[in-house]
Amino acid sequence: MEPIRHDEGGAMQSMSDIRGRSGPFWDGVNGRAPVPRAAATLGFEFIAADIDEGTIEVAFTASENFTNPTGNVLGAFLAAMLYDTVGPALLATLEPDQFQSTLDLNVRFLRPARPGRIIGRGRVVRRTGDLAVLEGSLTGADGAVIAMATANARVIPLAQARDAV
Amino acid sequence: MEPIRHDEGGAMQSMSDIRGRSGPFWDGVNGRAPVPRAAATLGFEFIAADIDEGTIEVAFTASENFTNPTGNVLGAFLAAMLYDTVGPALLATLEPDQFQSTLDLNVRFLRPARPGRIIGRGRVVRRTGDLAVLEGSLTGADGAVIAMATANARVIPLAQARDAV
Repeated sequence: MEPIRHDEGGAMQSMSDIRGRSGPFWDGVNGRAPVPRAAATLGFEFIAADIDEGTIEVAFTASENFTNPTGNVLGAFLAAMLYDTVGPALLATLEPDQFQSTLDLNVRFLRPARPGRIIGRGRVVRRTGDLAVLEGSLTGADGAVIAMATANARVIPLAQARDAV
Repeated sequence: MEPIRHDEGGAMQSMSDIRGRSGPFWDGVNGRAPVPRAAATLGFEFIAADIDEGTIEVAFTASENFTNPTGNVLGAFLAAMLYDTVGPALLATLEPDQFQSTLDLNVRFLRPARPGRIIGRGRVVRRTGDLAVLEGSLTGADGAVIAMATANARVIPLAQARDAV
């Protein structure tokens, strides 16, 4: 899974910047560590990040295994994707010995979603000390926003990750 | 998958009451329709419901496929389980030609969760016309609450389910 550099705006990190970063998030993105199993289950894919701006773009593959009887993607899995969009927005900005703990997640469901590729865009809205306010949205193939979320998260030492939410 | 009658308090629906109900939710619970694929992915299992009280108890199997690198269940999947707890609390109370649309979901993550069986308890807190306020919680093997959620949902005609969130 190669990180892709986005050229628009010139603000996205260059490939060399991204390859030079390490830590639990970047090691997965750069292939130095396996993709976390939860991320693989959601068909997670890193597209691009702007560490200075605190933004990230990712993608998911909504499979038929995520659908309700009408064939739509159950909102449960859209919430899961949003969790795995806003968290990485913060993770991408952290030091190698840091991790993040998502304290809450508030999701609004806007449109039905069909199986297929879903784009997630996340952003660190504000970081104050170890607390961060995050936001994210999901868009489907037609570019319309399917769902959006806000979250509060805490930056924690990586060594505390197993005991954190 | 047999629905289990809970005897405590005498308020849970009897087996015959539950078997007599139909509609998209009860047909799945009673084996007359396949379990929705999204529910199967989460290891969803119906335990009991009290339709008069608007409460439901369900279970999920958090698999290793839901874990982050520390081995904890990613909050993404806890949010998904809460979605699939609060929705069924309302669904269980509906007429056969009705369905529900979850408009938002607000989750708070309280404790780390390990893979295994997770119990979900959901409740219709208040229904006013076609709008319902829902709440739910997840508990792990030790009985401690892992995460809790509130949600707003709308009761919709079953025929509109495919175009609803």
